[in-house]
Amino acid sequence: MTRKILVLPGDGIGPEITAQASRVLAACQAQGLDVEVEEAPVGGAAYDAEGSPLPESTLARARAADAVLLGAVGGPKWDKLEDISKRPEKGLLGLRKELGLFGNLRPALLYPQLAEASSLKPELVAGLDIMIVRELTGGIYFGQPRGIEERDGQRVGYNTYVYSEAEIERIGRMAFEMAQKRGKKLCSVDKANVLEVTMLWREVMERLAPEYPDVELSHMYVDNAAMQLVRAPKQFDVVVTGNMFGDILSDAAAMLTGSIGMLPSASLNESGQGMYEPCHGSAPDIAGQGLANPLATILSVAMMLRYSLGEPALAERIEAAVGKVLDEGLRTADIAAEGERAVSTTEMGDAVLAAF
Amino acid sequence: MTRKILVLPGDGIGPEITAQASRVLAACQAQGLDVEVEEAPVGGAAYDAEGSPLPESTLARARAADAVLLGAVGGPKWDKLEDISKRPEKGLLGLRKELGLFGNLRPALLYPQLAEASSLKPELVAGLDIMIVRELTGGIYFGQPRGIEERDGQRVGYNTYVYSEAEIERIGRMAFEMAQKRGKKLCSVDKANVLEVTMLWREVMERLAPEYPDVELSHMYVDNAAMQLVRAPKQFDVVVTGNMFGDILSDAAAMLTGSIGMLPSASLNESGQGMYEPCHGSAPDIAGQGLANPLATILSVAMMLRYSLGEPALAERIEAAVGKVLDEGLRTADIAAEGERAVSTTEMGDAVLAAF
Ligand SMILES: CC(C)[C@H](C(=O)O)[C@@H](O)C(=O)O
Ligand SMILES: CC(C)[C@H](C(=O)O)[C@@H](O)C(=O)O
Repeated sequence: MTRKILVLPGDGIGPEITAQASRVLAACQAQGLDVEVEEAPVGGAAYDAEGSPLPESTLARARAADAVLLGAVGGPKWDKLEDISKRPEKGLLGLRKELGLFGNLRPALLYPQLAEASSLKPELVAGLDIMIVRELTGGIYFGQPRGIEERDGQRVGYNTYVYSEAEIERIGRMAFEMAQKRGKKLCSVDKANVLEVTMLWREVMERLAPEYPDVELSHMYVDNAAMQLVRAPKQFDVVVTGNMFGDILSDAAAMLTGSIGMLPSASLNESGQGMYEPCHGSAPDIAGQGLANPLATILSVAMMLRYSLGEPALAERIEAAVGKVLDEGLRTADIAAEGERAVSTTEMGDAVLAAF
Repeated sequence: MTRKILVLPGDGIGPEITAQASRVLAACQAQGLDVEVEEAPVGGAAYDAEGSPLPESTLARARAADAVLLGAVGGPKWDKLEDISKRPEKGLLGLRKELGLFGNLRPALLYPQLAEASSLKPELVAGLDIMIVRELTGGIYFGQPRGIEERDGQRVGYNTYVYSEAEIERIGRMAFEMAQKRGKKLCSVDKANVLEVTMLWREVMERLAPEYPDVELSHMYVDNAAMQLVRAPKQFDVVVTGNMFGDILSDAAAMLTGSIGMLPSASLNESGQGMYEPCHGSAPDIAGQGLANPLATILSVAMMLRYSLGEPALAERIEAAVGKVLDEGLRTADIAAEGERAVSTTEMGDAVLAAF
């Protein structure tokens, strides 16, 4: 049965990097992968073209797809949009919510070839391999009520941080299962000494633990987690946390590797449908210049093959090809050491295809 | 006029470190500082003795004091207390709220003598000097409604992230003034692309900016701030943010120095009354063994002299004394390099007094 993949290039460097990832997808098709690949607009580009960051037709095609590959959204051009429901980010948040992509997998993996790029001392990050499991369709990102309103003669802004037991249990199970497949250590991050919503979070994680006796569950306050990531990141295997803490910690963890241009991510729903995207953003400052690193997007295709298409062998081939081009010394500007020659976005795509 | 200082030793290593800080206070008295020093219980110790983490009498004496010196609160002994209103942390939060200590100053300063202790590469942190201004009596820590309740047959936890314009303006002014006294750069951290409450935050910061034309205001999303702290921390001078983001970022920033045992903090109210405490916690694992580093608490006394008692000269003398003992090579275990001999809490106190 032919499966459907929807590519959403988005804004900034999005189109350049998804173009290279699409070439890799085409190479997989040539190897017998039976997929149909379509493209649609999202984010600022979709707003400019159709007046909405998530047009109905894009959403309908995303729903119909087995997997979505997203470039990136956003840029200064749309930051001042008065109507915030039209901002590019709302396209991304809308996709997550509408597709029910509650489970966000954000690996922070240090490529040995790029160890020097980390701001941390090499011995602290050598071999770093953390998987952050972030809840993506709940918490304060989506909680109601929210808004800005006048109370007693002055304006007040408010948001609601809310989780139900069922939401916590669902992401908890995904994280426990991930830990079972990896180092069997799960650290749940909360602020249970202050916030009631995270007291419930901790309680549900505790309740699930006996069902996964091979996984060692620990808890950490979010402030301490931010410190421990800087101090001794290798203590972590799988980390599970809510939407907002996950946003902050996964970016910090990614940056520990020094090469965020290398990191893919997956967002999954209950039926295994997924959206795949690089961890980095739309980098409007370098857009259109052929400077962007396409590897995170190419590695997102590998994640897609593994998690949504059941093709682990092809996923490994892509990952091996990326390892090989790094071994050969190819570097885009973001991962080039001082004085090293940087290749262009397309040259990097060429090299991965040649190594595939 | 004799001013009043209340010392709250608290839990864990609290009593050991405040004991050394009190010796430094006594040395200041011997130099003519006209203060009266009292002690009172708080946190788990107060719960054990009087059934409340913030007894009425402690609160009354704190209100009557010109400044409060706090050790630290909390420990595993009280983590399982069913009635969370009795937990040690509630004593701390209660003090902040009742004294109106809305402005939390958390410096992240790298002592050149301890540069090796940082997990970051030396060139990235040499000369690091960030001041984080955290709002401390509002935001999601205190927002209502909050709780855990049953909805449609399942439990739901919720908290409210809320700020009024007046609250934002007050902390904004403190941060702008701090920037004026330092490097004249202020970075306001929010998540204005997702959370309405922080859209208002950003708007108020923008509105204040023209009143401080010598300060360069910038804005950064909290996820990016967490990354930039790891990537290039020296780009920051003063950072202003809300209670929860401030909790996370100030701990990450402190850890960049590698010597959180060196970092003091101040929490101020509108009349300049303040509570001073080390950035580190109660470290129950090493309590009572004479291993704790008293320098952050001693440096908190210096902050107290500067911000609440109007004695900058004495503050500088304490800071100079601390610099001198570091120059002499004295190290407690937390800041000792491998193989280096560590001195005890009391020996470190002796050395500071000798250098004072
Ligand atoms: C663009 C923004 C809304 C988004 C988020 O905060 O989730 C981004 O930071 C991310 O982490 O994917
Ligand atoms: C103990 C805890 C309630 C407190 C906080 O979160 O504010 C602590 O982490 C701090 O930063 O002072």
